[in-house]
Amino acid sequence: MSNPSAPKTNPGNFFEDFRLGQEIRHATPRTVTSGDVAVYQGLFGPRFAVQSSDAFARAIGYPRSPLDDLLVFHVVFGKTVPDISLNAVANLGYADCRFLKPVYPGATLNAVSEVIGLRENANRKTGIVYVRSRGFDQDGEIVLDYARWVMVRKRDETAPAPPEKIPELPKAVEPTRLGAACPTINAAAYDTVLAGSPHRFGDYQVGEKIDHVDGITVEEAEHMIATRLYQNTARIHFNQFAESKGRFGRRLIYGGHAISLARARSFNGLGNAFQVAAINGGRHVAPLFAGLTVFAWSEVLAMAELPGRMDVGALRLRTIATKDRPCLDFPLKVHARAGQRPDPGDGDDYDPAVILDLDYWVLMPR
Amino acid sequence: MSNPSAPKTNPGNFFEDFRLGQEIRHATPRTVTSGDVAVYQGLFGPRFAVQSSDAFARAIGYPRSPLDDLLVFHVVFGKTVPDISLNAVANLGYADCRFLKPVYPGATLNAVSEVIGLRENANRKTGIVYVRSRGFDQDGEIVLDYARWVMVRKRDETAPAPPEKIPELPKAVEPTRLGAACPTINAAAYDTVLAGSPHRFGDYQVGEKIDHVDGITVEEAEHMIATRLYQNTARIHFNQFAESKGRFGRRLIYGGHAISLARARSFNGLGNAFQVAAINGGRHVAPLFAGLTVFAWSEVLAMAELPGRMDVGALRLRTIATKDRPCLDFPLKVHARAGQRPDPGDGDDYDPAVILDLDYWVLMPR
Amino acid sequence: MSNPSAPKTNPGNFFEDFRLGQEIRHATPRTVTSGDVAVYQGLFGPRFAVQSSDAFARAIGYPRSPLDDLLVFHVVFGKTVPDISLNAVANLGYADCRFLKPVYPGATLNAVSEVIGLRENANRKTGIVYVRSRGFDQDGEIVLDYARWVMVRKRDETAPAPPEKIPELPKAVEPTRLGAACPTINAAAYDTVLAGSPHRFGDYQVGEKIDHVDGITVEEAEHMIATRLYQNTARIHFNQFAESKGRFGRRLIYGGHAISLARARSFNGLGNAFQVAAINGGRHVAPLFAGLTVFAWSEVLAMAELPGRMDVGALRLRTIATKDRPCLDFPLKVHARAGQRPDPGDGDDYDPAVILDLDYWVLMPR
Repeated sequence: MSNPSAPKTNPGNFFEDFRLGQEIRHATPRTVTSGDVAVYQGLFGPRFAVQSSDAFARAIGYPRSPLDDLLVFHVVFGKTVPDISLNAVANLGYADCRFLKPVYPGATLNAVSEVIGLRENANRKTGIVYVRSRGFDQDGEIVLDYARWVMVRKRDETAPAPPEKIPELPKAVEPTRLGAACPTINAAAYDTVLAGSPHRFGDYQVGEKIDHVDGITVEEAEHMIATRLYQNTARIHFNQFAESKGRFGRRLIYGGHAISLARARSFNGLGNAFQVAAINGGRHVAPLFAGLTVFAWSEVLAMAELPGRMDVGALRLRTIATKDRPCLDFPLKVHARAGQRPDPGDGDDYDPAVILDLDYWVLMPR
Repeated sequence: MSNPSAPKTNPGNFFEDFRLGQEIRHATPRTVTSGDVAVYQGLFGPRFAVQSSDAFARAIGYPRSPLDDLLVFHVVFGKTVPDISLNAVANLGYADCRFLKPVYPGATLNAVSEVIGLRENANRKTGIVYVRSRGFDQDGEIVLDYARWVMVRKRDETAPAPPEKIPELPKAVEPTRLGAACPTINAAAYDTVLAGSPHRFGDYQVGEKIDHVDGITVEEAEHMIATRLYQNTARIHFNQFAESKGRFGRRLIYGGHAISLARARSFNGLGNAFQVAAINGGRHVAPLFAGLTVFAWSEVLAMAELPGRMDVGALRLRTIATKDRPCLDFPLKVHARAGQRPDPGDGDDYDPAVILDLDYWVLMPR
Repeated sequence: MSNPSAPKTNPGNFFEDFRLGQEIRHATPRTVTSGDVAVYQGLFGPRFAVQSSDAFARAIGYPRSPLDDLLVFHVVFGKTVPDISLNAVANLGYADCRFLKPVYPGATLNAVSEVIGLRENANRKTGIVYVRSRGFDQDGEIVLDYARWVMVRKRDETAPAPPEKIPELPKAVEPTRLGAACPTINAAAYDTVLAGSPHRFGDYQVGEKIDHVDGITVEEAEHMIATRLYQNTARIHFNQFAESKGRFGRRLIYGGHAISLARARSFNGLGNAFQVAAINGGRHVAPLFAGLTVFAWSEVLAMAELPGRMDVGALRLRTIATKDRPCLDFPLKVHARAGQRPDPGDGDDYDPAVILDLDYWVLMPR
């Protein structure tokens, strides 16, 4: 039957709609308030003192508590969904994600993406779109910058393939490029008792593994409230009627939900890792569904000083989240259980309980 | 047994407690904040740019983002429940609902109702109460004005019937009475890319139908959080112990929840319909329960210019919400499926999936 | 296997870690905002006008609406959990809890506890720790002060027992010690119509019982959102994977959740009891789980004037909350059903539906 409404609704972009170098300004601008902070608090329960207490933040040099970095990430990411990934088959990865300016309640966030790579798949049904997405505040200053690639359906399989371009992206953000979103803090005024952990930057070591202990069960209402808070419209998270007939039989939880759950859980062991400075890469190894309990553990991959800064140091962390599987023995790959050192690049042999493999930099007071 | 507490609790008003012309000042005054905006955002996920971004709102002439019109409606409506509909058998309808002043976070809302009609039913067990309810802000200015009628139980079947009075209510709000809650905007500064839809007032036409595509599943926690946010105390929404023995065996979702879900979904196709100016009438055709997925579609019933205003035009919409039924083919009446044009006034033969039939005016930039 | 992360995570304190007179400064400071108020509103639905409306609060002499007293209590209590009760077997009681200063949105709350008693149990596996916990605002002023005792596991059964000290705690807070958190109000300006109840202090009498009528069903998402909002980390509330193998087979709801539910329900019958001035004692008689419906009733245990104050009077209330059991006949003890007057001190023979037995003082306008 004819559908006169088609021109009014957003069909999303298909692979052949993207052009190399194309710039896409995303809807909807969003003023993020202390209300959003409270809803995020209720959903994830973070306890990092800098984001929790205006008084604590002021004592070390912030004008007030900044927003949780991941709340900023999710809001910016959410804006890109209707234009970039509404017709995505899969979210393949992200890289070179840097937080560039502290964001405070009251800021209005916008997002713009640039197409930085295109590659049609051999089956001609799909292609990979690489974008660099940037979040801006109301003053037009960049607060977040990251690359992401997704596999997107073609509308028409016979549409010609675009010239192939695969962007070069760093495996990890260089430490020299970290710290822009963290004002110089007074590390001596950073009260580790109030912050809930005695361990500063120098107390960690490369190779150290930390079981974050606490498990947290996810409910349907929670992940939907979170994802709507970010104005992320990906349908798979919300529509049980459709998903009941789909691949999993149920709503798939937004991958960023697992990241926020793992980050909040990581407080237990990383209590002074008060800022996420960069995300080097992340992989949603398996889907997460409501009713499952999320656990997490982390390994310190590297430690770095920041050029010219004595106040904070950077830990490169690999955080693994699991479902219905405590992390006392640091589950990762199937081989790893037998005593082999896991190799971050060795393919798909993840422990079936693993849902997230995240590589990122956090800042800690020295 | 004796119940000495009876005088202290609120039994609600019964039919014979209402008097024509009676004015009822409702409890509880409520300061609505950016916190409420965030909770509402998390529950419904609206994306209309004017309400989402202070910067966007300022660019077109607002001092900041106003509250979502429906949040104002629900808060005012909620206040009337303990006095008007605690002993209601059924919510029969509303009419002539106009939004009269923009409401911003920080405003304190009050509500007053006047009894404008009474009609005892033939069975002498119930009667219909017509009220005009008005929401006021902290300056005593009217922000919302609507008529509503409900069927209310009698306490005592032998109580004498009041003089019958059925008020005349308009089928629809005249376009000349629209727009008071919308300041004159700078339509040229209205950025349709940021707003997420290229379609302005002139791009729509009468008779056009729009499938809003996206379905959203409702959870018990969500509708109860929403309804408590409005301080709406209607017991049927909250008490599974009682409802498990009741007509439906489960909690009935507040009808306004379906309105907010449909309105938020309507962004996909009506992205620039940034304000609800009036509600002409609405019918909760069937109950909604948790676990069901809500879809919606709209028809443009009429288009109107506003006297003396070149900045915005008004679309009269009929929005239909369904449960567990996508709206690609615009489900409405049973006959309609066979190809007949549905008649808005033709009775009860709704498609069994339809839950809401709402007739209202929205404003769009020209 | 070795667990190098053990030193970084918080194992909580065991019985032998506590010393009489020890002072524990708790993490994490928390700025409580209007966003938290909105989330709390959505979760519990309180309708006390002073906390709901800035305009109402100002009319009687507050600078604006204060936070709900119980929100303050839960946030302060939550801070004590990681240090005091992470290894608790049972929460045994609290006493002498006083609210000492009104708290407004924007305040930052901290907490400090002092160990005021210790007693090892005969089995040598556990001991009872008595603490006095105090909540402070950003100016270092005490806003809340209460005693609490918990049964805590020993790490090592052979660890020597500390000198036994059982603190003397009052059965009830003396009326002369009430009222610090309530500024002198203009009781004549207190509008009982707007507040939703005509009954002032003088309208109640000792021995009066009030059924609060309304039942409210609890969902998993709701109690977890609330408990995370308070940054309460007690694992039993969040981890279905672990609890499915535990004593109850499911997540146990934070006891304070039942208190907030009962308090919000008590509006129906105690609508002008606008402030909780003190908690004399409380007992979580039985666990509460998601899916159950909470009802409540109250008895007026005593009435008191406050020294030198004509504006407000104090009601000492005993509020009983039940699960899946309406309170029309005031369920309490098993004997009570047979017509005997229940004795507050007569032991464990509670009606199996009772979950909470709370003894507290509220303030009402005179």
